[in-house]
Amino acid sequence: MTFSVTILGSNSATPVTGRFPTAQVINHLDRIFLADCGEGTQIQLNKYNIRLGKINHIFISHLHGDHFYGLIGLVTTFHLFRREQPLFIYGPAGIREIIEVQLKASQTTLVYPLHIHVVDTENVSSVYEDEYLTVSTIPMKHRIPTCGYLFREKPRPRKMKPEIIDKLNIPLALIPKLKSGQDFTDENGVLYKNEQITIDPAPPRTYAFCSDTAYQVSTADIVANADLLYHEATFMNDRIDMAHKKFHSTTVEAATLAKAARVRKLIIGHYSARYDDLQPLLEEAKTVFQETYLAVEGAVFNV
Amino acid sequence: MTFSVTILGSNSATPVTGRFPTAQVINHLDRIFLADCGEGTQIQLNKYNIRLGKINHIFISHLHGDHFYGLIGLVTTFHLFRREQPLFIYGPAGIREIIEVQLKASQTTLVYPLHIHVVDTENVSSVYEDEYLTVSTIPMKHRIPTCGYLFREKPRPRKMKPEIIDKLNIPLALIPKLKSGQDFTDENGVLYKNEQITIDPAPPRTYAFCSDTAYQVSTADIVANADLLYHEATFMNDRIDMAHKKFHSTTVEAATLAKAARVRKLIIGHYSARYDDLQPLLEEAKTVFQETYLAVEGAVFNV
Repeated sequence: MTFSVTILGSNSATPVTGRFPTAQVINHLDRIFLADCGEGTQIQLNKYNIRLGKINHIFISHLHGDHFYGLIGLVTTFHLFRREQPLFIYGPAGIREIIEVQLKASQTTLVYPLHIHVVDTENVSSVYEDEYLTVSTIPMKHRIPTCGYLFREKPRPRKMKPEIIDKLNIPLALIPKLKSGQDFTDENGVLYKNEQITIDPAPPRTYAFCSDTAYQVSTADIVANADLLYHEATFMNDRIDMAHKKFHSTTVEAATLAKAARVRKLIIGHYSARYDDLQPLLEEAKTVFQETYLAVEGAVFNV
Repeated sequence: MTFSVTILGSNSATPVTGRFPTAQVINHLDRIFLADCGEGTQIQLNKYNIRLGKINHIFISHLHGDHFYGLIGLVTTFHLFRREQPLFIYGPAGIREIIEVQLKASQTTLVYPLHIHVVDTENVSSVYEDEYLTVSTIPMKHRIPTCGYLFREKPRPRKMKPEIIDKLNIPLALIPKLKSGQDFTDENGVLYKNEQITIDPAPPRTYAFCSDTAYQVSTADIVANADLLYHEATFMNDRIDMAHKKFHSTTVEAATLAKAARVRKLIIGHYSARYDDLQPLLEEAKTVFQETYLAVEGAVFNV
């Protein structure tokens, strides 16, 4: 039951050798979702052997270049690879024009359907839903319209107790109903309450991707109890003034949010170019929230 | 008297691990010019220690993504680095809109002056000139408006013969005129013809950058006698039909053009993703033009 996050880029906008701008792969049951798509994302996808054909949905947090300059390259590569299935891109207003103007310049008519959905960055709003997963926006507090994305598994059906089907001679056709919570009456008229015949499924898991944002306590409610939270930490806390001025967060702020939201694990990233050594950022965050990890290119986190 | 070309990207559009899309650094007397700017150009500039502050002029051949998707990232990085001097971009119509729409989306007002010049891709036309160098377009034959660029040194002043200044007691103020070809009469009224007191300067050097193009013989006149010619060779000659269909060239066609133009050296590049091993392309080109070299990331060629 895969649900993992692979870091493709850990850096903020000013380039640093060896670090890439923000991009993440979310693998849920072998479906690949992208969160942000900075320049060179396709280089990183290639490096970490992510199969392009499995990417159908790309979520862009905002239109600062370090979060989307790699998108048009990926859109074009899908075209060159003669992709057939539709691609869905979600992001703030303006994203459609950026893609269209570049395709127009190269006189490219994509060979696959491209659907661009402009998202509401101001409110929590559902942007994607399938049988197993929902994705909704997380309003962020940044210099331009920005949202994070909350990847939340749907509750799974209950599980039948081992051997109960044979023991009570339950017709197979009834099982989906029982898994969804119905009681069962056997052929002798004996009633079995649902909790007598089923057990709890694994709890649904949640990943919260909080890209560029100033610290805002309201986010804690939205991402409450997430299994994994990515929260940007561009600066260490001695530069909190700079962070506030630029609508970014510090290590301590990211960790404070993780603690307030009672998440299980925190990943920090989007490091300022001033930090070569990231250990001090990790250590500072851990003083507030022990279960903190560094976003590093290629790192994989299970949700 | 540096005049060199560094290959940042040797690949065509479909991504290949370890190869980057087209971008080249032209260093003339320690001024840095860029020819094309595919995705990841700034990663490559960083890797090869090219100082961003020395880049003032960027020439874009055409608006297929593998030749310009790295431009907006570089424009933005200059902004983040608080560049002050103006940046000049030259390219086909459409390039201004592509940059402006992306800057608008991020609400970025650049801190430095950006000048975008739309070039005439249909005719040889001068696009840049300074004290030492001219750059003009080379019309290419491609699917969308495309031009190469011809970097040509201006003729240098003649050189004074060693020790002639002391021997003839030539006033220093006269020397620039003598270097420009004037004769000299000494204090006794003796006339010295210019060729008696000066020697020929080094001949002006020329680099021709011929990006994506079908083979066209007319290019040979424009790049005639170039010291160094880059000409795309997307395919080997067994795929000449494919090359023609896609308005690209083969190894043999690139070499044939180099031969017809009597250039000194040829670089081939813009390889199709189908070629892992580039040696066969080199060998095939050499059957027509011996002085052929492979564009490889990081390779430096003196003009």
